[in-house]
Amino acid sequence: MGTTTAVNDVNIAAVAGLAAKIKTEPEVAATQWKATVTWKGAFRSESRVRDFAPVPSDEPAGLGGGDTAANPVEQLLSALGNCLAVGYAANATVAGIEINDLSIDLEGDLDLRTFLGLADDNAGYSGIRATVHLDAEATEAQLAELHAKVIGTSPVGHTLSRPVPVEITLA
Amino acid sequence: MGTTTAVNDVNIAAVAGLAAKIKTEPEVAATQWKATVTWKGAFRSESRVRDFAPVPSDEPAGLGGGDTAANPVEQLLSALGNCLAVGYAANATVAGIEINDLSIDLEGDLDLRTFLGLADDNAGYSGIRATVHLDAEATEAQLAELHAKVIGTSPVGHTLSRPVPVEITLA
Repeated sequence: MGTTTAVNDVNIAAVAGLAAKIKTEPEVAATQWKATVTWKGAFRSESRVRDFAPVPSDEPAGLGGGDTAANPVEQLLSALGNCLAVGYAANATVAGIEINDLSIDLEGDLDLRTFLGLADDNAGYSGIRATVHLDAEATEAQLAELHAKVIGTSPVGHTLSRPVPVEITLA
Repeated sequence: MGTTTAVNDVNIAAVAGLAAKIKTEPEVAATQWKATVTWKGAFRSESRVRDFAPVPSDEPAGLGGGDTAANPVEQLLSALGNCLAVGYAANATVAGIEINDLSIDLEGDLDLRTFLGLADDNAGYSGIRATVHLDAEATEAQLAELHAKVIGTSPVGHTLSRPVPVEITLA
């Protein structure tokens, strides 16, 4: 495949091509992403993104749900992990580092009191931790550099660690 | 079903039971949520939560991906929409409001330059908007009150709008 490097199976030419295009057409960098969520009764809902199959959402039984799918705060952790996986794959490929195995354990602490109406404080995560298990053909120094690069460029990581203006309007 | 109200099919007894339990055992409110992400080659990965089927992740072709699933920043929008859906269902049920239809359109603005290594700034969303389409048996004043309640108690909404300490470590 002419557009796929031998390393990590990543189509780094597409990434480089996009970066080159943005240098001459900066407006290409300003992207917009979308999703549509439909309520399905009780605490079930599903999300649609582009033309992909809908992804279900539910709450555990202890929270009044039907326990049929990951809940929204678990989905948030998944999004962070998936984003870090892309970051490692992309930056390792640029650095010529072959990844043998990569997995990421994520956990977050959340006080339910505000969600349940027992407090009027932060309903969200007070802290999130990601532990990266990376087996790759590189020195410790190279891995540390790769790690720093991934953390410094992670769209979901930055979204979570920074305050984002979130506008929620009733149409 | 003794534990399911007639309204919105929500098991509000389970939610009320949890709230009552937290009043006498405050430590029950301190929850921890988890996910594990496994890299599958290129920009593909999958996330596992509890015993549910893994959910795939990929990037669009323009970003070097295989275009087989929603990407992490789209998953983040989905998590917000699913969280708001739970919030509406829960709070409408408590208020005795029957929901006929509920869908939520989400969009977010993201400058790709930091992710692509062309800048050293915010790689994440600069802004997120959710537009809620709610058809429910309630007055406009009741809907406005419901909306305010949902926004004030949304775990994912608060996580996104507040800076969260995110620790990412290489094991």
